[in-house]
Amino acid sequence: MSVTKSSNPLIRDPDTLANALGLSFDDNDLLVQALRHRSSGRLNNERLEFLGDSILNLAVSDYLYRHKPEASEGALSRLRASVVREESLARVAREIGLGDYLVMGSGELKSGGHRRDSILADALEAMIGALYLDQGFAPAHAWVQSLFGTALESLPDAQSLKDAKTQLQEYLQRDRLPLPEYEVMEQSGQAHRQTFEVACRVRCQGVPYETSASGSSRRRAEQSAARRMLETLRDTLGESPGKGK
Amino acid sequence: MSVTKSSNPLIRDPDTLANALGLSFDDNDLLVQALRHRSSGRLNNERLEFLGDSILNLAVSDYLYRHKPEASEGALSRLRASVVREESLARVAREIGLGDYLVMGSGELKSGGHRRDSILADALEAMIGALYLDQGFAPAHAWVQSLFGTALESLPDAQSLKDAKTQLQEYLQRDRLPLPEYEVMEQSGQAHRQTFEVACRVRCQGVPYETSASGSSRRRAEQSAARRMLETLRDTLGESPGKGK
Repeated sequence: MSVTKSSNPLIRDPDTLANALGLSFDDNDLLVQALRHRSSGRLNNERLEFLGDSILNLAVSDYLYRHKPEASEGALSRLRASVVREESLARVAREIGLGDYLVMGSGELKSGGHRRDSILADALEAMIGALYLDQGFAPAHAWVQSLFGTALESLPDAQSLKDAKTQLQEYLQRDRLPLPEYEVMEQSGQAHRQTFEVACRVRCQGVPYETSASGSSRRRAEQSAARRMLETLRDTLGESPGKGK
Repeated sequence: MSVTKSSNPLIRDPDTLANALGLSFDDNDLLVQALRHRSSGRLNNERLEFLGDSILNLAVSDYLYRHKPEASEGALSRLRASVVREESLARVAREIGLGDYLVMGSGELKSGGHRRDSILADALEAMIGALYLDQGFAPAHAWVQSLFGTALESLPDAQSLKDAKTQLQEYLQRDRLPLPEYEVMEQSGQAHRQTFEVACRVRCQGVPYETSASGSSRRRAEQSAARRMLETLRDTLGESPGKGK
């Protein structure tokens, strides 16, 4: 398989990228293909991205399993999602200057595609896939660890990654307080563009609290109302809502 | 780390399982842990399952990438989902008799937990994770390929895995017919238990067709209505709805 390099002089040579990263590909076509956005033609990086995504997931799972021996399966999943999310991948892609090497159709290029998070993240995953095909799991694994070293060493608190309803429930249960209640107060708009207004109610130390929020789905509205409730209770009662009971 | 084997004489010895599968663990505790459902206590297979899931995903992605060179990223994703879904994992787990080796709390055991799809699938993933930790990626990869050989060699048609709305759209676009229209005809029930009644309308060779279906969400109702439309059109017009235009 032979993949044509870009003839656009503004796009830098893939070899320069490989050298800068200390990578050396036996089959250089794989690297060239990893840098081709789907707007550049049929031979692009989409299939390599599919493969690279799986390698990235395993490399991060492996790190978390070994470095977070006390974390539950749920905490591990949330931590992994925080590392492999598009925004985080795009940041790493920018650090290695990946945007300068991407080949894309002129429409994408003009609209700033080489700066877009989704395109950068996909190309980074495709490069991981290309390295795996060229050299096997161990080198690809090692490269992911070096790319994501900073992100992996400064993982967020697993608790803070929980959704607001779960955090509120755990906050209340710590002091054995009753669970919050949610009620849809209003539902408006047409079927495909509805707005939900939801109330969240809890009782702490005999005092009733209520917050409300709206959202484009019942779930989103409930999460917002729970977040407001958690802020209100923490401001008012601190970390132990049932202390005075 | 030492993991206590089950003292229940009805549960078979993990070594027997490893021997039957031709696997040999340096650290046998990993195998023992992989067979412990969370109902058996704190040291269970949930974290190993988290890891094994990533290995399974990569092993299947690798196979599909190499054996389906013409498949798009979307087709690869749908094929992978068909292989790694719970039901398919549970079938493989049953083939190797995994249920006989699972350690679980007495409540789970009495309610037939060792025959449940979700528990079997999780334990199989945990075993893959244990083998990876014990022996590295290549042996775990090879084991997944031998376990899922039959499923991988008899993959479904990628087209049939598309959702009904996509299939209907592609069916119509093949003959450049206009896209189907969907309309919510009725929405009933309380906010958290709604029923949607949706109509699907298309026009082929000047003739209007309409199907309808209901579901617990607008999306589900639309998918059902699209499935009915596709069946109707194929029965009436065959594979080329716009042929006579």
